[in-house]
Amino acid sequence: MPKYKEIIREIIQTIEKKEMEQGDKLPSIEVLMEEFEAGKNTVLKALDELEKQAYIYQVRGSGSFVRKTRRKGYINISEVNGLKNTLKDFHLDSKMLALKIVKPTPEVMANLHIDKDEDIYYVKRLRSIEGRKFSVEESYYRKKIVPYLNQEIIEDSIFSYLINDLKIKPGFTDQFLRVATLNKENADLLNLNPGDPTILLESIFFLKNGEAFDYSKVIYHYEESQFFIQGVSFLDI
Amino acid sequence: MPKYKEIIREIIQTIEKKEMEQGDKLPSIEVLMEEFEAGKNTVLKALDELEKQAYIYQVRGSGSFVRKTRRKGYINISEVNGLKNTLKDFHLDSKMLALKIVKPTPEVMANLHIDKDEDIYYVKRLRSIEGRKFSVEESYYRKKIVPYLNQEIIEDSIFSYLINDLKIKPGFTDQFLRVATLNKENADLLNLNPGDPTILLESIFFLKNGEAFDYSKVIYHYEESQFFIQGVSFLDI
Repeated sequence: MPKYKEIIREIIQTIEKKEMEQGDKLPSIEVLMEEFEAGKNTVLKALDELEKQAYIYQVRGSGSFVRKTRRKGYINISEVNGLKNTLKDFHLDSKMLALKIVKPTPEVMANLHIDKDEDIYYVKRLRSIEGRKFSVEESYYRKKIVPYLNQEIIEDSIFSYLINDLKIKPGFTDQFLRVATLNKENADLLNLNPGDPTILLESIFFLKNGEAFDYSKVIYHYEESQFFIQGVSFLDI
Repeated sequence: MPKYKEIIREIIQTIEKKEMEQGDKLPSIEVLMEEFEAGKNTVLKALDELEKQAYIYQVRGSGSFVRKTRRKGYINISEVNGLKNTLKDFHLDSKMLALKIVKPTPEVMANLHIDKDEDIYYVKRLRSIEGRKFSVEESYYRKKIVPYLNQEIIEDSIFSYLINDLKIKPGFTDQFLRVATLNKENADLLNLNPGDPTILLESIFFLKNGEAFDYSKVIYHYEESQFFIQGVSFLDI
């Protein structure tokens, strides 16, 4: 593992272990250089990455500070990390409702930038949190990039499987969120009534090389779900 | 203006003027160095900032590519840019409903990390987009940081005033989003019915030095509002 990643990992662990709070100051660049036996550029690279991930903020001339604010139970949708990771303090259960290989609809073609002949894994899951119905997810994975899926993977964490087993590196996401109303099928799944409001979150997941590999549409139980979004630094030009 | 900011500004203009699309390749680092008569570090700094702002993505060994996807009419809540900027293609109208100096409630104290004696500007606005009622906003600005506000500023763009006149540099935001139901007062303002769903977006705006200066609660018309969130690069450690 490159040195700067080691530094990132250590700093995140320190923040979490010491339960540092927003505004707490990190050691200076000089101290970090000594502690990690690393050059200045390496330490700066680690701090920049931590800032990009919203773990810290850097103040010119005075140092780096912990940023990490969380409200327990909020889903962080500025992180590309999988629901299971973002809600790791909770018991999350995923039940497979469908798994099949299909051809893309026009909507899927447009969102994944693919043509009509490509094979797609269609996955539908019902997810519960602490035993309460939470969301219905429909995902479309390009088989070219995700060659295999099964029930065991789908009911555990697809994201962990992609990263740890397939060595797929998610790069970034585009997400679209709005209020919609539930149809009968999804209302039944969530123990709600048809016509009840829901948050509809559409996500397109990209590899680091810019290729889209997953388009997903998730319907959230409106009383059970809340979202956290960390805004990026203001572009000061 | 430092050289790297010039480069950022030029690249954004090029992307917008040439209507470049997602995946379109930018000139190589060497070409940019020559074009801007800049050193490699300067060009890299500009590209890193553009990546942080989700304008581009960088692929190791093959270059930089345009990322900017927008769906027209979606509010980008991963950008700290003010509603007027994010919806600049639309006619946005802001009507002041209240402006007064108050002491903070416990909720405001907690979100701004301030004590009970500080003076706060309380601002309430009704915003319309293309003549349609769109959102009701309640904001709490610390008077210590925003010493003056009036109706003219509030009905134009508070954000532009902060940046251009007060030289306040917003750094980042924490935002919390969930579905709520409308009370009678807000339902009347939005021409909806009490009990109708709404998206409630709470935002805390921070200066570059990490101080919170504005806490706002916005209720959105559920049929008129949709949100866009760009997820940050996956932390590959």
